Order: sequence, then C-alpha cells, then structure tokens
Amino acid sequence: MKTSRTIGIGILGFGTVGQGVWKHLTEKKSDLESRLGVKLDLRKVAVRNLKKKREVKISSAKLTPNPFEVIDDPKVHVVCELIGGTTKARECTLRALRQGKVVVSANKALLCEHGPEIFQAVRQHGGQFLFEASVAGGIPIIKAIREGLAANHFELIVGILNGTCNHILTRMGEDGLSFADALKEAQELGYAEADPTLDVDGIDAWHKASILAWLAHGKWAPRNRTLVEGIRNIGPADIDFARRFGFALKHLAVIRRNFEKDWMTVGVYPALVPNGDILARVSGVNNGITLRGDVVGATTLAGRGAGQDATASAVIGDIIDAIASLTGSARQGLSLDDLQAREKQGQKIRMAELDEIVSPFYLRLSLLDKAGVSEGVYRIFTKHKVSIARVIQYEHPNQGRGTVTLSTYPVSERKMGAVLAELRRLKTVLEEPFLLRIFSPES
Amino acid sequence: MKTSRTIGIGILGFGTVGQGVWKHLTEKKSDLESRLGVKLDLRKVAVRNLKKKREVKISSAKLTPNPFEVIDDPKVHVVCELIGGTTKARECTLRALRQGKVVVSANKALLCEHGPEIFQAVRQHGGQFLFEASVAGGIPIIKAIREGLAANHFELIVGILNGTCNHILTRMGEDGLSFADALKEAQELGYAEADPTLDVDGIDAWHKASILAWLAHGKWAPRNRTLVEGIRNIGPADIDFARRFGFALKHLAVIRRNFEKDWMTVGVYPALVPNGDILARVSGVNNGITLRGDVVGATTLAGRGAGQDATASAVIGDIIDAIASLTGSARQGLSLDDLQAREKQGQKIRMAELDEIVSPFYLRLSLLDKAGVSEGVYRIFTKHKVSIARVIQYEHPNQGRGTVTLSTYPVSERKMGAVLAELRRLKTVLEEPFLLRIFSPES
Repeated sequence: MKTSRTIGIGILGFGTVGQGVWKHLTEKKSDLESRLGVKLDLRKVAVRNLKKKREVKISSAKLTPNPFEVIDDPKVHVVCELIGGTTKARECTLRALRQGKVVVSANKALLCEHGPEIFQAVRQHGGQFLFEASVAGGIPIIKAIREGLAANHFELIVGILNGTCNHILTRMGEDGLSFADALKEAQELGYAEADPTLDVDGIDAWHKASILAWLAHGKWAPRNRTLVEGIRNIGPADIDFARRFGFALKHLAVIRRNFEKDWMTVGVYPALVPNGDILARVSGVNNGITLRGDVVGATTLAGRGAGQDATASAVIGDIIDAIASLTGSARQGLSLDDLQAREKQGQKIRMAELDEIVSPFYLRLSLLDKAGVSEGVYRIFTKHKVSIARVIQYEHPNQGRGTVTLSTYPVSERKMGAVLAELRRLKTVLEEPFLLRIFSPES
Repeated sequence: MKTSRTIGIGILGFGTVGQGVWKHLTEKKSDLESRLGVKLDLRKVAVRNLKKKREVKISSAKLTPNPFEVIDDPKVHVVCELIGGTTKARECTLRALRQGKVVVSANKALLCEHGPEIFQAVRQHGGQFLFEASVAGGIPIIKAIREGLAANHFELIVGILNGTCNHILTRMGEDGLSFADALKEAQELGYAEADPTLDVDGIDAWHKASILAWLAHGKWAPRNRTLVEGIRNIGPADIDFARRFGFALKHLAVIRRNFEKDWMTVGVYPALVPNGDILARVSGVNNGITLRGDVVGATTLAGRGAGQDATASAVIGDIIDAIASLTGSARQGLSLDDLQAREKQGQKIRMAELDEIVSPFYLRLSLLDKAGVSEGVYRIFTKHKVSIARVIQYEHPNQGRGTVTLSTYPVSERKMGAVLAELRRLKTVLEEPFLLRIFSPES
C-alpha cells in the first residue's frame, strides 16, 4: 500500500440514484480507500436546481448547476452520468470520454441508442464506459456475462428485468388484485412512475434485453424484429389458468441464440413460467436472470433490480473497477478487444424467422354462447396442426358469451399467428384474442 | 488488436476437471484468441499415469508424468492446479508462484489449509492465485463478492454449497427416498464418492464456507468455533414435519456478521428453509448462495456447483481474467491491497458467543409412551423460557414409544443447548434428541 494516488469522482445528476451513490461513497470512504490503496476525492455534483431540499447531506460548495464544470475538472477522473435521458446525457458522456475519462452510467436508453458512438469514443481516447447499473440494478449480470461466465456461449438468456411489472404481476397472481389496483399500489409505493408506460408496456425491459443480447452476441437487435409486449391486458382468467396448471405469470425478456443456424431472437413479453422454475420464485420488485451457457449450464442471478441502494451498489462496483484499472492494479472493465471480437461475430448473426421461434402458447377467447361455436374454433387449430394441451371454459350467465382459456403444445410463431388471424375473422369470437407465451427452457 | 502475444497454459492433473478444461479450451481456442487479442498455447499436461485411457483426445507429446516440467517451462504463464489434495498441490502451487506465474486452482482444501502461505508467495513474487472454481463450481460467487458487489459489507451469506447433500435431500424430501437409498443413487449417478464422508458430513461445505467468510470478512474461522453437521441422521419424521409446515430441508452454510459487535459466525448444517425463500427452490445437484449486502440487499446466485463442465467454466473464467491482466488490458483478479485491507479489518473480528447466535429450532424426540412424559419434557422448555411454535406427535403402536417433532420460536444456541442437556438426562427420552436449525434471514 505504497501508492497514495488521489482519484477524483464527479456526479452528474442528483436524483434518487445520484444521492444513493453519494451517500454510500461518503459512508464507505475510508473502507474503500484502504481496500483500493488510493485517496478518494468526492469532488463535485452537477444538479439542475441548486436550492432544492435533498435527503442526503452535501456541502453547497460541492454543487454546481453546470455539468461541464464537473466533466472538465482535471482532478475528476471518474464521471458518474446519472442524469438520464439521451440528449444531455449523450453530450456529457461523449465530452468526458473524449478527455479519456471513465464514465460510469446507469443509462440503458443512452447505451441502446448511442452505443456504437460511445464505444468509438472510448476506443479513440482510451477512456472507459462502464454500465453495470443499466441492467438489473444491483445484480452483477454484466460482469457475469463479460467475466465470470466468459468461457460460455449463451444459448438462452431469460430474465425478469422490470421490477415494476414483476411487482404488479406478483400482486395480481398471489393476492388477486386487478391490474389497475396493482398499478396504483405500485405508484403509491414509488415502484412505478406517474406515467407508467416505459415499465408496463415493456420498453424498459426491451432496452435491458437489447443490452444483454448485444453483450452476449455482439449484435443490437432491431426494434422491428423484437417482440415487445406489456402487461396491461392481463386479466383474472389468465391468472386463474396459470394458478390451476402450476404457472406463475412473469414479464420475461427472452434472448435465444441458435449457433448452428446463426440466428438470435430477442423478445420481451408476459409469459407463463412453470412453478418449478427458479424464476417463478423471483417475486415482488426483484429481478432475476437465468443464463444457459454451453459450458456451465444454467446459472441464475436474482436480487433487487432497481431502487436507490441497489443501483448505487452497481455504480460503486463500477467505480471500484475503474479505480483498480486506473491505478494499474487491475482490470479495465470492458476490454475493447473482447467487445470488438464479439461485434465481429455478431455481424454473422441474423434475427430468427417466425418459423424458428417455437414455444407452447396460452390463449384467451371470448366466444358467443351458441351451439357449434367451439367446433368452429377447434377446426382452425386442427387445420394448422396446432395441438391443444389444456382448456378451461367459463360461463357468464345471461351475457350471451363465454370465456375459453387454453394452452397448446409447442408450435412456431408463424403457425400460431395463422391460427390467430383466422380466429379474428370468426364472427363468434367477440373480442381480440389474448395470447401469451409459455416459457419452457427447451423450446 | 495489434498484440499477438502468446500465452502458454499448463495443466496439472488430468482427472474430470482437468479434462473438461482441456476440452473446452481446445474447442474455444480461436474464439478466445480473438476476444483476448492473444495466441493461446495449450502446452502441457502433467498426469499420474501416461498410459491411462481418457475420454478427451490429447496428443501424447503434450503429456508428462512430471508436474515440474509443466511449471518450470518458461513458455507456460498460467498453471492450472487440478491435482487435488494438499501435499503435492501445495508444493506445485508454491513452486509456480515463486516463479511469478499465475496459478488457477479449484482446490478448496489447499486454500483453507495454506491460504496465508500462498498469498505470501503471490505478494513476494508478483504472481497471481485465482480460485473461482473452489467454491460453488460454475457460479461466479468469488467474483461477485470481490468485484460486482464490492460496494457492500455482507451481513449474511447463506448458501447450499454441496451438491451431493442437496441431491440427497431433494430426493428424500420430494420423492420419499431414505437417506441410504438416496446416497446409493447419488453414488451410482457419480454425484457422490465411494467414501461420501467429505460431502455428507459437511467437510466440503465447511471448506467452501471458510473461503467465503475469509473473502467477505478477512478472517479464517477456526474449525473449533464452527458448527459442522452433516445430513446422515435425517429421517422421515423430519421430512414430514418440514413438508407439513412449508419448509424444505437444505444443507446450509451460514455466515453472519454483526458489524456493531464485530463478530461473525460460520456454520454448516442441515436446516429447514421456508418454501418462500428462493434457496428452497435450489434443488438437485445445484448450489445457490444468497448474499445480503448493506447496500444492495439480498442477491442470489444459483447454478451447477460441481461437475466437469461447470468447474471448467470457472477455471476458464479465471484463465481469461489472468490473460487480460498479463496483457495489461485488464484486471489482476484478487488485488493484494484489497486482500490485505480486508485481513486487517478481519483481525478485529471475533467469533460470536453462543448467546449471540439465535434462530428458531426444530427438535425430534423419541419418548417413552407413558402418562406424564410430555409434561416432563415441556417443563424443561418452560424452565429455560423457550417457547414452542409447532408440535407433531406420532404413535408407534406396541413399541412402547412415541415420536415428537417440534419447532421453537427464536432462541440462542446457549439456551437451546441447556434444554438439550436436560432432555438427555430424562429417562423417558429414549434416543439422542435430533436437533435442526430453522433458517430465517432475520435471526
């Protein structure tokens, strides 16, 4: 411990996560200093509003309204970009990287939209861009893919990546709440935003899934080749079907890779997960990811996927990595050779066609209550050779309609799409059919 | 990718794991070369018997009966010690480290028994000692503690660290097998050795728990202050109690740290785990570990804890880290500053006293079938102020005895020990009482 180099840390954005990072870095300063063999200088924080009252104590001399003042300070070596959004955040990130600095980011949208530009700047100027906090909060999933499980090719990555959806679905499934009530509760508890679109419509999970797919396979999945579904339309009959047949309803991100045919699929959607699967046990606001590697087999990581402290844990983990690298005692986080090689391999990969994506399906139909209606429905399944595994039929007396929920054996998206198209044309099918995928590791 | 440095890899020991490492390194050679920006030279393997038939193909020119020939080869930079045991393995490890080389090891016993000597050699000669494979096979738990979750202090580390025990307990709990039958099956499947002592008596899990405790807290727990229990005595009444009241029987390693009072406890023992806990879902030969960090909250990692491929995944992960470090592009695995700082903090820690270790307990008693016997038993609980939560009593007609299983509210090891000592002295208690701990994250 001869070195006594001082590492300066600057923070852009002092919202929930920024304050969490500041709080824990302050509390653990001397502990981290002795472990890392450096002095830490928590130099500056850029805030939007200098006068706002904050829960975390910070001297007003440390605050500035100008993020460039933090970035350009020659004594700041590590810049934590915690502003969010993709405009100002992009500008600040590139500015820091072009000075060869380390940027630690929790910004998934930024990485998804400007990843190539960011890594170009890293390559040119010798800085670093670290983003463990961008996916699954406190769970070290990026590090697991990039380092701990680096010996593996990942045939399957499946995860619960949005804690808000998982909280809502857990409350619906275990406690019988409606979607609207569960959402309201999540908003009251601070798990969901006033405008919950990003979460409940699957956008947030899609950003995270894109990052994992890119990391594992070197390819950014185009949005128009990615199935993105939210959880707004899940109703009591779906919950009932899941419970009766031993499933939990989860909002999943699924990334499959076929190494023989060189395709991958990326999808985020609600799915029925067998209760025996460890992901079925990941409940509430937690996240969980199972990676199936060709060497290691299935490995699962689960924990808190969002929130001030969990995200701060990931950001500080990246800061520690960066410091170890800056002082020469350790790693550089994301080796650029590795990244480049993965992207080169990724160029060969195509997105899977609809016949190549196969799973069992779940379907909810609202049917006219009349003799012969069921037969007409089943005829369509028979025509497309889709076998039905389980059925529940509910009557709604005096409403002139019934509800049928059913599951199929594994079948391709293409075939199921054809069945759906024909069902929509039946006059006896009263509402838009509601489709869910059933997760099975094999298919 | 300008560098074209060649990294030489040597392997000591060509059993299950050694062959797995060779196989996967050979298969992924060009992939790893492009990702790491180096040439890999799989140079030599030291074997005990040159003529033995092996499943993995290897040119006989690569084999040598002399491990020193591998270690001393100036073109070998990374030595994988996969011999096992602590005599030859110690000699080889120290010899390589004294030449400043990298040693990658899966040898938990070696690390437990000779850790200080090994790291002394690393410190003096500037080499590295990496040991991800020593705990929980393919699960990157060492890296999670040291890097991904490095922002945290760990209040609790609880894990299923022995796949053999977990397979046996899963078969007993879910399929009603006896311990003897489940053990026999595990041996037939290759999950248990002919002499299963190390596994079923908890020694293997104890080694792993010691390593995790040392990593997290900088202190090696003395064996005589560690509770080490195996699973041989678990019987049908215990399984029945667990099932009725919503528990799974698991062989746990539990490391608790109290930061206020500066103590830690390390114990490995069978315990009842609530079904709602994610660890209750870790079944078969899998391992799982929950880390509760002061920043991140509870994070769980689960996957295959042993076997050729899972262990090879961890070994190759370490090799990749070592190469990244050797080529200057990345980390040094275990930073010595960090290690030293943790050990310095560890010097302040004491092992917990028996009054400080608190949990609910489970107890099975074999009692004389006579009026007044139960009262005599309960009197002892009352005297020590131990409250009983649940009881099941079984009759065994015509045997003159009954079985009582019960659980308590949380109470200290000291109090429970006093109850047990008095119960043993009762003439109406016919066999040695059988005690299990009930895991609860809070206590």
